[in-house]
Amino acid sequence: MAQPSAFNASLDLQFERLIDIRPELVWSAWTEPEHLVHWFTPAPWKTIDCEIDLRPGGIFRTVMQSPEGQHFPNLGCYLEVVRQRKLVWTNALGPAFRPMVLSGSTVGEGAPFAFTAAVSMEPEGRGTRYAAKVMHADEAARKQHAAMGFEGGWGTALDQLVAYMKNK
Amino acid sequence: MAQPSAFNASLDLQFERLIDIRPELVWSAWTEPEHLVHWFTPAPWKTIDCEIDLRPGGIFRTVMQSPEGQHFPNLGCYLEVVRQRKLVWTNALGPAFRPMVLSGSTVGEGAPFAFTAAVSMEPEGRGTRYAAKVMHADEAARKQHAAMGFEGGWGTALDQLVAYMKNK
Repeated sequence: MAQPSAFNASLDLQFERLIDIRPELVWSAWTEPEHLVHWFTPAPWKTIDCEIDLRPGGIFRTVMQSPEGQHFPNLGCYLEVVRQRKLVWTNALGPAFRPMVLSGSTVGEGAPFAFTAAVSMEPEGRGTRYAAKVMHADEAARKQHAAMGFEGGWGTALDQLVAYMKNK
Repeated sequence: MAQPSAFNASLDLQFERLIDIRPELVWSAWTEPEHLVHWFTPAPWKTIDCEIDLRPGGIFRTVMQSPEGQHFPNLGCYLEVVRQRKLVWTNALGPAFRPMVLSGSTVGEGAPFAFTAAVSMEPEGRGTRYAAKVMHADEAARKQHAAMGFEGGWGTALDQLVAYMKNK
């Protein structure tokens, strides 16, 4: 397993919460497309497609839909897959680790930027210590991601995940 | 292990040769800095520094020196490490998988471009079937890499590797 790197306040964003469903359910929510589409995008946005090949170098593709009906495809690949504990992926590389045409740095407002995200889930009491860390190449990309509403977005999506998986 | 992807002639470069040293020696040459610096850069260029943390997300850093004495640092991380068989790394991500400030696409002549490289070594007879594949984000990056002398460069470096490791 890759060693976790220290949090870098100028380059990274993070999010942590104790939730009351087990890590196994969190893992299913993140790794099975039929579950992921139900919670991944804060409403009224939707995730209308999802493709997952759960291994390093395997595809992680989603398509989000805005309330106005515009589609936003996201393509990346997994880097680290530790069953029911940790999932790491990036949009800097596509399937089979091919580099993507994306600037690591921000080239303008709304421009795509590269990130690597790690989600971890550890059993705690009867629930899960859930943590997300997103790494960027530079401060401009981190700021752009923060301005897009990283914390609120991930928080709302996690609320949706818990509410949806509780009924599974 | 990530599934090997098909060769894409417009995006990839490849190189294959049968060499007369065993895969174990090829592996050592690629993964031990004290060996790597002796063969990695076609003479009269030199590799004057090398750092290797041999695991997915671990650093792969080299510094090349031109005949005129100029230094060219290269930073990336490993993506796949299969002992004595396969090594995959990229310069699109740095240590701990952090994205790098690099354009996937070529932004101008001499500009850095992202690539992912895979080197494989399979026993064949008393030697090794040695193959390298380098993937790019777009055709411009592939062409730039080809124009830099990919095939000649990797061929000369491999000659140096074999000559150096034969004496180990």
